[in-house]
Amino acid sequence: MKEVIKSSDNKNFKYLKKLYNKSFRKKEGKFILEGYRLIMEACGKARFDRIFMTPYFAKTDEGEEIIRKFKDHIPVHFVTGKLLYNVADTENPQGIAAITYVPRSGANILFHNRNRGIILILDRIQDPGNMGTIIRTAVAAGIEGIICLKGSVDIYNLKVIRASMGAIFSIPILTGVSFKRLQKIRDEYPDYKLICTDLNTSKFYHEIDYQEPLMLVIGNEARGIREELLSLADIKIKIPLMGNIDSLNAAVSTAIVLYDIVVKCRHSNG
Amino acid sequence: MKEVIKSSDNKNFKYLKKLYNKSFRKKEGKFILEGYRLIMEACGKARFDRIFMTPYFAKTDEGEEIIRKFKDHIPVHFVTGKLLYNVADTENPQGIAAITYVPRSGANILFHNRNRGIILILDRIQDPGNMGTIIRTAVAAGIEGIICLKGSVDIYNLKVIRASMGAIFSIPILTGVSFKRLQKIRDEYPDYKLICTDLNTSKFYHEIDYQEPLMLVIGNEARGIREELLSLADIKIKIPLMGNIDSLNAAVSTAIVLYDIVVKCRHSNG
Repeated sequence: MKEVIKSSDNKNFKYLKKLYNKSFRKKEGKFILEGYRLIMEACGKARFDRIFMTPYFAKTDEGEEIIRKFKDHIPVHFVTGKLLYNVADTENPQGIAAITYVPRSGANILFHNRNRGIILILDRIQDPGNMGTIIRTAVAAGIEGIICLKGSVDIYNLKVIRASMGAIFSIPILTGVSFKRLQKIRDEYPDYKLICTDLNTSKFYHEIDYQEPLMLVIGNEARGIREELLSLADIKIKIPLMGNIDSLNAAVSTAIVLYDIVVKCRHSNG
Repeated sequence: MKEVIKSSDNKNFKYLKKLYNKSFRKKEGKFILEGYRLIMEACGKARFDRIFMTPYFAKTDEGEEIIRKFKDHIPVHFVTGKLLYNVADTENPQGIAAITYVPRSGANILFHNRNRGIILILDRIQDPGNMGTIIRTAVAAGIEGIICLKGSVDIYNLKVIRASMGAIFSIPILTGVSFKRLQKIRDEYPDYKLICTDLNTSKFYHEIDYQEPLMLVIGNEARGIREELLSLADIKIKIPLMGNIDSLNAAVSTAIVLYDIVVKCRHSNG
């Protein structure tokens, strides 16, 4: 077995540690995956940079499988549990982490077919669990892609990746999009109807006959969709609230409306 | 101001501390609410036992409001931040906690109208965030009640209460129900159709014309609905998965199916 990294001054380990910081992830265009299942999920979908594991994990069946899979292509570093557990985001870390490259994404990946498609636009979703669950739901619904406006939680945050159950690798996601850029995208694709959820409308989501192509906008957990985006809507909808509560969870709202749209547009060929 | 509790040996503080433990909550029939918003949400819905707050919180507007509201009815104890923050479940505690009584619940509260109604049955939901989000969704959908089978996460867990946004007080919930008791309930209410989600069926949820009264069953996050309950189903349904993923989050699945049922049964009079 190769040398085991024992010092937090080791340059490879320092690089991993810095990638737990959002701004360094952005600068490097890389992010971290923790755990066997997520790493296997990403195989064939993500481009890997290097892998870290504890000598203990290396001796498990999963460890041996990962070493076999990666050792001819990228560096596999061994690092003490003390160091690796200490930086890990997961509550009960397994002793395995990988650095992967952020996928290239551009509006043209999303709009591969101008005449058909459903795009989800997220306006400043803040909670990592909500963001991950929304991405997972979007993949299940088979839509074309997601646009995250500036001010949304970083989708390469490990809590998002975990809540997405690895779905983050299965759908084009455009991140850090300014409102100005969104307006430009919209002008380029005028055939897409813009659907916004809005508590102040009188139209219910289930009364609409949706037609592709369309963009569905979901707003921030507390503040909803920003006014200037709401004013661009072709259709405003709301979900009926029939009990003693004034809102739904953001991931739940997304799921209710998105699935209604998808089953209406695609007649359940799932 | 009354004496401030400074010692963890104080009997009132010890009682609060013990209620952070699930089995003690069950024995006492009480649970804890943390934070101003949740406590205000519970006012008029829950029966309060006593309140704890830090001297610092007592001097805020919220603190004064709570003291005004409760001081003539139940004991309000002052306790040092050191003690109260130390037991708190919340990451950034405000310095206010209340002990409330578990509401009385029985099957007859749920089935107040034998000819109409939607009941949600949860078969061993494990994640507190999912449980709370499901309760919030059930209240929003305006259904009659929830039955939690034995093996589900304790709904009086603070993480559940927070995720429910206080919705836990706005719907009858029957907890710790054994499978045997569920069978008995079912026999007593034979007009309720039993709907189960099942990945192995070929019927999609949105193709069904639902009629009240009915019971919708949602299963455990990883294992789904237990076999013996599935075998009682009148209708088995699944949600189409159109992308590269093999399941949806449990709260998301509940929301998609429950809202489809509710808008079909009640024609959006929300």
